[in-house]
Formats: sequence, structure tokens, C-alpha cells
Amino acid sequence: MAYVSKVAVVGAGAVGTAIAYAAQIRGACRELALFDLNAAKVRAEVLDLNHGMQFTPMARITGSDDLAVCADADVIVITAGAKQDPGQTRLDLAAANVDMCRDLVPALVALAPEALLLVVTNPVDVVTYAALKFSGLPAHRVFGSGTVLDSSRLRFLIAEHTRVAVQNVHAYIAGEHGDSEVPLWSTATIGGVPVKDWTGNGVRALDEEVMAQIHHQVVSSAYEIIAGKGATNLAIGLAVSRILEAVLSDEHRVLPVTSRLDDVHGISDVCLSMPSVVGRTGVESVLATPLSDSEMAQLTASAEAVSAVARSLGL
Amino acid sequence: MAYVSKVAVVGAGAVGTAIAYAAQIRGACRELALFDLNAAKVRAEVLDLNHGMQFTPMARITGSDDLAVCADADVIVITAGAKQDPGQTRLDLAAANVDMCRDLVPALVALAPEALLLVVTNPVDVVTYAALKFSGLPAHRVFGSGTVLDSSRLRFLIAEHTRVAVQNVHAYIAGEHGDSEVPLWSTATIGGVPVKDWTGNGVRALDEEVMAQIHHQVVSSAYEIIAGKGATNLAIGLAVSRILEAVLSDEHRVLPVTSRLDDVHGISDVCLSMPSVVGRTGVESVLATPLSDSEMAQLTASAEAVSAVARSLGL
Amino acid sequence: MAYVSKVAVVGAGAVGTAIAYAAQIRGACRELALFDLNAAKVRAEVLDLNHGMQFTPMARITGSDDLAVCADADVIVITAGAKQDPGQTRLDLAAANVDMCRDLVPALVALAPEALLLVVTNPVDVVTYAALKFSGLPAHRVFGSGTVLDSSRLRFLIAEHTRVAVQNVHAYIAGEHGDSEVPLWSTATIGGVPVKDWTGNGVRALDEEVMAQIHHQVVSSAYEIIAGKGATNLAIGLAVSRILEAVLSDEHRVLPVTSRLDDVHGISDVCLSMPSVVGRTGVESVLATPLSDSEMAQLTASAEAVSAVARSLGL
Amino acid sequence: MAYVSKVAVVGAGAVGTAIAYAAQIRGACRELALFDLNAAKVRAEVLDLNHGMQFTPMARITGSDDLAVCADADVIVITAGAKQDPGQTRLDLAAANVDMCRDLVPALVALAPEALLLVVTNPVDVVTYAALKFSGLPAHRVFGSGTVLDSSRLRFLIAEHTRVAVQNVHAYIAGEHGDSEVPLWSTATIGGVPVKDWTGNGVRALDEEVMAQIHHQVVSSAYEIIAGKGATNLAIGLAVSRILEAVLSDEHRVLPVTSRLDDVHGISDVCLSMPSVVGRTGVESVLATPLSDSEMAQLTASAEAVSAVARSLGL
Repeated sequence: MAYVSKVAVVGAGAVGTAIAYAAQIRGACRELALFDLNAAKVRAEVLDLNHGMQFTPMARITGSDDLAVCADADVIVITAGAKQDPGQTRLDLAAANVDMCRDLVPALVALAPEALLLVVTNPVDVVTYAALKFSGLPAHRVFGSGTVLDSSRLRFLIAEHTRVAVQNVHAYIAGEHGDSEVPLWSTATIGGVPVKDWTGNGVRALDEEVMAQIHHQVVSSAYEIIAGKGATNLAIGLAVSRILEAVLSDEHRVLPVTSRLDDVHGISDVCLSMPSVVGRTGVESVLATPLSDSEMAQLTASAEAVSAVARSLGL
Repeated sequence: MAYVSKVAVVGAGAVGTAIAYAAQIRGACRELALFDLNAAKVRAEVLDLNHGMQFTPMARITGSDDLAVCADADVIVITAGAKQDPGQTRLDLAAANVDMCRDLVPALVALAPEALLLVVTNPVDVVTYAALKFSGLPAHRVFGSGTVLDSSRLRFLIAEHTRVAVQNVHAYIAGEHGDSEVPLWSTATIGGVPVKDWTGNGVRALDEEVMAQIHHQVVSSAYEIIAGKGATNLAIGLAVSRILEAVLSDEHRVLPVTSRLDDVHGISDVCLSMPSVVGRTGVESVLATPLSDSEMAQLTASAEAVSAVARSLGL
Repeated sequence: MAYVSKVAVVGAGAVGTAIAYAAQIRGACRELALFDLNAAKVRAEVLDLNHGMQFTPMARITGSDDLAVCADADVIVITAGAKQDPGQTRLDLAAANVDMCRDLVPALVALAPEALLLVVTNPVDVVTYAALKFSGLPAHRVFGSGTVLDSSRLRFLIAEHTRVAVQNVHAYIAGEHGDSEVPLWSTATIGGVPVKDWTGNGVRALDEEVMAQIHHQVVSSAYEIIAGKGATNLAIGLAVSRILEAVLSDEHRVLPVTSRLDDVHGISDVCLSMPSVVGRTGVESVLATPLSDSEMAQLTASAEAVSAVARSLGL
Repeated sequence: MAYVSKVAVVGAGAVGTAIAYAAQIRGACRELALFDLNAAKVRAEVLDLNHGMQFTPMARITGSDDLAVCADADVIVITAGAKQDPGQTRLDLAAANVDMCRDLVPALVALAPEALLLVVTNPVDVVTYAALKFSGLPAHRVFGSGTVLDSSRLRFLIAEHTRVAVQNVHAYIAGEHGDSEVPLWSTATIGGVPVKDWTGNGVRALDEEVMAQIHHQVVSSAYEIIAGKGATNLAIGLAVSRILEAVLSDEHRVLPVTSRLDDVHGISDVCLSMPSVVGRTGVESVLATPLSDSEMAQLTASAEAVSAVARSLGL
């Protein structure tokens, strides 16, 4: 009998390691297994994580270059794959990372037939769609980190502009985790006040120009971080730990993960992020967040952009 | 030089003790002083709190029946006073508790001239108004727990109805902490979806009848808890710890505390709860949350109800 | 399939409620059920706990006056029973509380056949012994909070004397949770320094007189708290939450819980506290902590005192 | 008036960033400033940290390539400098990193005259000694992370061997943070049981051979991690966050930091780690932990090794 939850993380690169580190510090899981093809790397990361255990909630952290380390996991986080180089878009990565899933995903499902699959590898919408197809699992059990990180970036920038705690900014980015992503301004609120009505603290209202600047910064910041440090890993580590907590504690938490839509605002058969309720069984439901006409048009365009890549790869 | 923050809690009854316990467990402050006229009671509570220190973040917890224990506090939480008996309304308590403040508040200000005053004693809106007057302090430094608890109750009930994590329900109750309180349904959202647009999970939409039932439960639950256990203390303990954290970490957090309004939706010179930004200097600003016509009418009525009590007491 | 851990707490008095509150704030469990014969009381406590959920990790908290609310729990905490009045010793309570277990414990085992039983009701050593007998379960699955609280009190007093963080004081009280309890001074350390070698910070060494004073305060403080506030509940709430975390996260944590000893220092067939390794299966092992001659003599006397009560009750 | 604590971290490399990330997640400080000569790198790290703020306690995180970002810090953590390459010993790094301090440390003291200096740069004992000298500050205000990490590694290995939670293993490594470090086995305990008396759980006793193996692994693991991933950063990030928490919350916590000894077991005028009480004023006292003859001899040798390097650099 499995008494405690097990998370497996595939890929011990900058992202996989940050997820493990954040999950350990936050006590997100009791057992964590790290897989990487590079045996010396995965062993080094596991040692470094374990050496900090005195300072964190108890967990059993193991690692291996043998995929069997993922056996019987409750959730498998896929971070492996080619990573975004400076100047590359996320979609450029698609072919290589979809290919990787062809063998990897069925092998993972065989090792952990009850697991949820949580995809982080980019382009996350396309790779999630591929992983779902290759897994043979029901759609609610395969989803991706999507725009959880983008939404967090949006919230941070709104909070900084308005001088209110980021935890009081409720705003989502939907659509592709990438250049066609759609900030849902029409339903965004700050401490209960709709963004368009925000005044106060002597700061400039969130008019069209300010919103456009903030949106631009969200999209460009990933490129800026990659240029400055070679990868983005810290915020995505926290975002994925948060998703894991929603699953493992069966929180019914609203998070803009990416999953295969089935007639959401008329969009079907593509993986895209929309605010969704996440719990122990995976994606419990996708919310019918009302959209402005402009948001609807952008979301449709984003769906088409992602679908086009998926089709071009024969998915 | 004071290196660490000090909180003083006046009154070691069920509420004051729950605040201290919650704040200790959450690591909300490094130094906490408990005052009560009953020396044996305050010593017993302080011993019981200290005996659990092995299991919590470090704090120095002291207590006394000498008000000087509050000296140099950064925040003073006032919980003392006559408490609500089964069947009593909060306003019935007004005269006694306002009277208590006449000597207590100036004595506290003399002992801790830099402190913020955070009033929890009921009827909290009237007592906050009295404490502000007796203190001689600027309005932003004297505020009350207000409808932070009522809002938390509202959110819990909405979350239970919609099967979504309570942390994703963003809804405020404004106005009096009491029978005339006003749920701000028009700006309430669930995971970014306005309440009126909520569907999904196969649950009944939040129509007028459901909203009325939920509002009724919020108002009646305090009476039900008092009838069942003699006092409400656990949730208010957490709510006040949360307010303290917003202050001590200078979070600029939006919380529906009660403070003296100055032309907020045309309302002035009465303490009422509205979503407000709270930080190290106290109430940084009161938000101009848009109101429906009905909400505006209810808020005006609530202001009048509270003002009438204050006037009747010569404030 | 049960995805998340369930704790049931039998008894919604001051202790049971403090356990639930501490466990909720610390995120110790995802599902908590509270049972009490008083339906209005248990409903009031559950409402009050739930109303604070916005401020804590997610949990599902329910309650009832129907014992079936405990069904399928992973751990059942027993706090019900007659409580210690001012001036009473814990052993005075024995007959009534042992009697209560005769029907209660088999009913609980029938409802939750996989559960561990964690006894808090006093006199905890005798009641644990009775619960074990009435349950028919293997010894490692039935244990009591024992001297976890007493040890925490001892550590706090040593920390206060030496001006070192309580988390660096490693000292256990063994034996009865009561007047015959035995502080294990010979193995106690402060930041790695044996107590007898402690100097520094300009404080008086922990000589025989200081140790005797501290021991006296540990024993007398429970009486002082009961006299001052009518019950001890805050520290025991945290102590029991800590034990629950050790179990539910399978921590293999050393805690001085009480369980039936089987030739520990020659002592058998009595429930007494000794430092023990606690994990998901209950008491994994009892440590053979070395004892001085005096400690051995006191422990033997403590065992005899507890056995005598058990025998007098026909156990 | 400074209401909240400010930590400055000098160096945004793998170690400095891990410290910032761990401190943010754990809520160790309210304001954190990151300095690095590489402006694009420090900006990228600060963006990545800030983008995760939605998921952590509130903090203000800033960064710059202008040292003035450290102004008025309460604690300055120095992580900059040449880093250990595979195969290098920590002492090889000494000359370059001592040289770096000659201008850096006085500049930091000028910017933040009230700050404590916490050195992490290796060889930490020599660099701490140099920083103390160049700072002109009293000895208790300049200290280094020392063997906090080594002790954590030792505890993890003992815990793994004995199958007990690492939080119950109390064992220190003293002396140099490097090859001459000294495990203090004679005072090490597991759940209150001296290591030499440990039996149970069916595992092999901690005899001379097992202790030697464990010590070997502690020393070699740093080299193994550097070979496998290029740097050690995760565990040191947590260790330094822990030290910061001890300081900022004035915890009087026992931690084996390195500071200039003044007749500790006859050793003076060298920076070495010994269990020390750490609080808001820095190193409050160094504990006179009793040593076996062998430990005393090893500690003396370790002192001489560190002193020799310091002398060779003209310190």
C-alpha cells in the first residue's frame, strides 16, 4: 500500500531541479524521484537536494538514469527535451520534443499506470497534445504548466504598477504559452476592483497603453531572462510546485494549465491554457471565463497557431 | 534599537488567545505580549503558548496584568471588553466597550506612541471610531478587523457551493461587521469568473436565491457558533493574524478592515469596512470598489446604522 | 480510492479543537473529521474552523455527533473523556476514561479498520493500555501523546535558562505523563553540549539545584495552567499535530510517545513514554536510550505506578 | 525608520541565486537586494525571482550592478569570487578571493555601516578572517557559513544509515570548511541516544568503520557534486537562508558558523567553525563543546592549516 504521494520529475536540468528544490522546500510531496540520462548530473543534484534536508520538511529524494525510478508515481512531471536558446521561439522546439515523447510517454505510462502526466517541456501546448495522444490516457489526466507562469508574470507587473500585494491581483493569461498568449483583461481584478475601474495610490490608471506595455513585458521577459542567464527556471519551479500541491492535496484550485479543450468557447481538439479547476484526478473542469470580443478573437488565433504546429508535425 | 517587531494583545480571552496562538504558529511576529486584568489567566495562557514553542517558529511571548507589558509595541490589538452573549447583537455591546476605551486607549498610546491600534472588540466599527477619537492619532493608524472574517465566511460558503478552492473565491463583505453588512456580489469572482457568469461542475448557478441563502448563512453563522460554543474565536484568530502579517511585512494587502471613511462613495466620518490596502503604516488607502445601486443603498444604510449608535453614545 | 489522508478527532472539547486548529494551520492533513456527542458544539467548532480556511492550507473539515464521521480514517485521535479538574491528578480520571473506551474503541476499529489510534485522553498511559487491549490491534498501532508535551515544557524551560533557541535543546521526559515522570538529564544536550558541561552566556550552570527547579516547574505547570484557565490545550494541540505529521508523512521521527513496552530496560507490559521512532505504521521502534542509575530507578517506579492503576482497574 | 529587514547578496551566481530563492520561498526576509557585476545576469535573476512572487510570502527583490543596491542592509551575504573548479581544493581559491575583499568589504561597510557580514565565498574560513580584518568591525559582526553545510551533510548520512528523521540527528562538524574538518562524534546524538550507544531498527551500529565511511562521504561529496553539476548550490542556499533566519528573528540559534576564535579550547586568532549561538547581533557566543582527545588534536591541526594559508597571504 502506498501511504505517501510520489512525484517523478523527468529531466534534471535547470527547470527539473528548480521544481524539485521548490517542492522540497514547500513540502509539496513526501517522495520525489528525479530521472536524467546523465547519471553523474542526476546523482549530483540528488545529493545536493538531500544535503539540505535538515532545513526542510521530510522527503525521500532519489534519482537515477534508469527510467524505472519513476515507477508507481502519482504524478510525472516532464521537463526533458531540447531547451529554448536565445532568440528561438518556443515553437521552434516542437519537432524534437514531440519526437522525444513518442517512446518516453508510453514507457512512463507502463511504469506508472495510475499517474497524471504534467508536461513542462516547451512548446508546452504542442508537447502536451502529443503526450496525450501517445499516452492513450483520458484527457483530464494529461495537462501542462501552460500559462500559470505567464499569469504570475502578469500579476507581478500589475502589482508593481498599482503598489498592491501580488496576491491580490487576479488576472489570467490564456491561450498559447508563447507569443500568441492572451491576457484576459476584461475579467482581471485588483482587490476586487475591475482593472478598468482601478484608481488610487496616486498611480496612473491601467489604460490601454499601460495594459499594452505590461503585456509586452510579459511576453518579452522570458526572452530577456534567457538572454541574461541562459534559462528561466526559478519562477517555473515555483509554478509547477504549486500545480503539484493542487493535485496532491486535491485542492480544486483554479490554475491556467493547458489541456485539450472540448468546445470551450467553440474551440476543440487543441491543447491551450484556460483557467481550469485542478485536483487529484487532474483537470476537473475548464472554466467558461467570459471573454471580450477582442479576447475571443485573440484566443481563436492562438488556438489556430498551436493547431498549425501540431498538424505540421502530423499529430 | 528595536530589531524585531512587537505585537501587544489586550485581553487574554478566547479571541485574544486564539490570535496569539495563530500568530505564533504562523510566525507572524517575533515578540508578543499579552495583557489581561486576570493575572492567573494571562500567566496560564502564556505558559501554554510557550510550552508549544518547540513546534513553532521562534517567538518571545510574555504576559502580565500590568498594561506596561504593551510598551513600545508596533501594533496593539484590542480584544478586551464585554463579549456578545447568545441572542445579543453586536451593537448592544457598544456602550460598555466604548467606555472601556476612554482610559485604555490614551494609556496605550502613552506606552507605545508609535503603535498602530487594531481593534477587534465589538461592535468593532463603533469601538474603532471611539478608539480613534480617544487616541488623538491620525486616522490611518487606527483600524479594526471589520469584515475580514465575514468576507472569509462568505468565501467559504461560495467555495463549498461551487466546489472550488476557497483561495480562488474573491468576494468581499463591506459595511458594518454585523447585521447590516453588505456582500459585494457585483464584483465577486470565482477563479476570474464573475459570480453571475459562473456555471460548471454541475452545480446550481449562483442565482438570486442562492446568493440570498449564502448571505443569510454568513449573518446567522456567528449567532449559531455563539450558541454552540459560547464564542467565535478560531476564524477571527486567523483573520487577525493575517492582518498583522500584512502590517508587519508591509505587504500592501487588500483587506476589508474598518477605518474612518472620508468621502468613500460619499460616506464620511464613520468607521466602516471597505476593501483597503494595509501595510506598515496602517490603512494606506480605501479602494473605490464599484457598487451596484443596491449595494450603494445598503452601504448607505449600514453607515447610518453605525453612525446612529456612535451618535447615541455622544461620539 | 482514498487519495488523501484522513484524521478523525474524537472529542471537540478544548483539546480536540486545539488539535484541529493547529493541524489546519500547519497543513498537517487534508481531511479532518471531528466527533462529539454534543451536536451543537461540534457544528459550531467545525463552522469556526472552516471560516478560517481562506487563511490556511486547504483541508476538508467535517463534524458530527454520529461516530460514523470517523469512518476510514488513517489516524483516530482520542481526546474525549472526563477532564482533569483543578487539584485532581491524572490518575484520578482513570476509571471513567477506561470505561469509556470499552465500547468506543471497538466501534472505532470497526469503522476504520486500518487506522492507527492516538490516545490523548488522560491518564494517557493507562487509557492507551486499555485502548490497545479493547482494540485487538497490534501494539505498534495504538499509542498515546505521552510525554511529548512534558518534554516540550522541559525544553522550553532549559532554553529560557540558557538563552538558546528551544529548537537546539534536546531533552526528553520519559515514563508516566504525570507526577512520576522522569527527565532524562544524563543524555540531555544543548546545541550538542551535554547539559552537565553547559556554561556560557554568563548564566548559571545547570547544576542539581537548577535541574530540580526546572523539573519541579514542568510537573507543576500543568496544575498552574489548569488553575488559571481551566484546561491545558494550546501546547498539547501543537504536540499532537506534530505527532500526526510524523505519521502522515512517514517521517521516522523520534518522539516520546507512550506505547506498550516489551522488555525496554527490562520493563514490559505497561504503556509508558520512551523516545520512539514514529512513522506511517505507528511506533516503529522504542529507543534504548541509556539511563543513569537514578533514571533507571525512577523509570521502574513510574512503570510500577502506572501498572498499579491498570491492575486496579482489572486491565 | 526602517520597518523591515533588508538582506543584500553580493554575487548572483549559482550560490547567490539559490540563497535568494530559498530565502524568498521560506519568507526569510522582506527585502532582498542582489548585486552582480554582470548587469544582464542580475536583472535576469531578479525578474525570475519576482515572477514567482505570487507563490511565496511577500518580499521586495531588487538587483543591480551598482554596489549601492546594498545600502543600509541589515545583513550582507558575500558569495562573489572565483569558484571551486573540479579537482581544486577550497584553499587554492584563497589568494584571489582575499584580494577581492580588500576593496569590496570597506565599500560595503561604508554603504551599510550597521550590517552584519556573512561570508560564503570559499575558502570561507580564510575569507571571513580577511573580511573581518578589512572591515574594521568587531569580531561578532563578521562570520561565515562555515560547516553549517558540512554538518547538514553529516546528519543526512547518519539519518540515512539509521533510518531516523534527519531532524533528530544532532551532530556537528567543526574546524575548517574543507578537507581538515572535524566531525564531533563524541557528542553526536540520535534522538537523544549517543552515537556510540545507538542500536535498533536492525541496522549496523555506528562503529569506527561506519563513522569513517560517513566522514569520507561528507568530505568527498562536495567534489562529487562539483564534478556532476559544476557547483554546489542547493544545500548551501538553504543553509544560508537558515542562518539569515536565525539572525533576522534573533533566534539565539546554535549553528556551526565560522568566526574568529578567542581562546576556544586554546585556539585563538583564526576563523574556524564551532557550534555558536547566532542572533541579531551576530555571533553571540562560541560554545565550549567538549572534545575527545582525537577531536582536539584534529581541531588543532585544522586551525593550523587555515592559519598557514592566512599567514601565507600576509593576513
